Amino acid sequence: MHELTLNDLKSAIRDVPDFPIKGIVFKDITTLLRDGNLFAEAVDYMYDHFREKEIEVIAGIESRGFIFGTALAYKLNIGFVPIRKPGKLPAEKISEEYELEYGTDQLEIHRDAIKKGQRVLLVDDLLATGGTAQAAARLIEDLDGDLVGIAFLIELSFLNGRKALKDLDLISLIQYDSE
Amino acid sequence: MHELTLNDLKSAIRDVPDFPIKGIVFKDITTLLRDGNLFAEAVDYMYDHFREKEIEVIAGIESRGFIFGTALAYKLNIGFVPIRKPGKLPAEKISEEYELEYGTDQLEIHRDAIKKGQRVLLVDDLLATGGTAQAAARLIEDLDGDLVGIAFLIELSFLNGRKALKDLDLISLIQYDSE
Repeated sequence: MHELTLNDLKSAIRDVPDFPIKGIVFKDITTLLRDGNLFAEAVDYMYDHFREKEIEVIAGIESRGFIFGTALAYKLNIGFVPIRKPGKLPAEKISEEYELEYGTDQLEIHRDAIKKGQRVLLVDDLLATGGTAQAAARLIEDLDGDLVGIAFLIELSFLNGRKALKDLDLISLIQYDSE
Repeated sequence: MHELTLNDLKSAIRDVPDFPIKGIVFKDITTLLRDGNLFAEAVDYMYDHFREKEIEVIAGIESRGFIFGTALAYKLNIGFVPIRKPGKLPAEKISEEYELEYGTDQLEIHRDAIKKGQRVLLVDDLLATGGTAQAAARLIEDLDGDLVGIAFLIELSFLNGRKALKDLDLISLIQYDSE
């Protein structure tokens, strides 16, 4: 049972026009996070969906993916693996590239972060075109992890990022059908 | 009651020599995080210390401070406020500068992140010289928040960062007395 609905969560997201560049309306989650009940409910909705899926470890994408990923890992009593921007992880690692609007960027994971066959849940705050999540998914597959599902707080449905991540148990708590 | 001791936590930290630069031994926490029991115990040790301190919100410093900060916020059923590197926060914000070995850097917080008089716990993964935590503390004070305490996973005691943060309820779970 939840005291708050998914619409309550959505109402707490703040639209910030022209960030990071003119013409983009940024979905600011800090107005949800700072409210303890809203934050806990968001984590609990993710927990309810994945509690029976025998997840063994959560991978979160730097840095807003750490926010829901670690709280959910704590609730599930499982470990947390950070997927980071280049140059941040200290030990032996692998990397995957993904495309940005202009140019490319990379994500990295420690080579020993995930055991072969380990059941992994990927967590991030927002699904847009899916490029970042796809790169993170490839990292988990490169390590022979068993990527079971992906949880997002927000899904920008009109960008169809879900198509890029088919065959995965993908959930989002809040959807936007248009810009 | 804890199933694991603080020494168990310390044993899980990995030393990575010559990272980020030659001569530095980096304390890698990812080997602790990926173990669900170790991660949960670390959060629970922080929780035990602060559970009776009437903390109203947790502020975590990007990005490793998000890891323990959000899990602890979830456990305490309170909100979480991110303190971020420049250019990441979308809405109206304030900033504070801190010194690096060469040059300076900045931290930012949303102006509406903390209410006047709100009791705040600051969380980060590692206390070195204390410069970053001091800048974060100033941000909280700039907003008239009541900074009650600071929790670190690791304290590099030989750098005396604790002196820079006196008058605060400061805890660390793991200490290193020499390099």
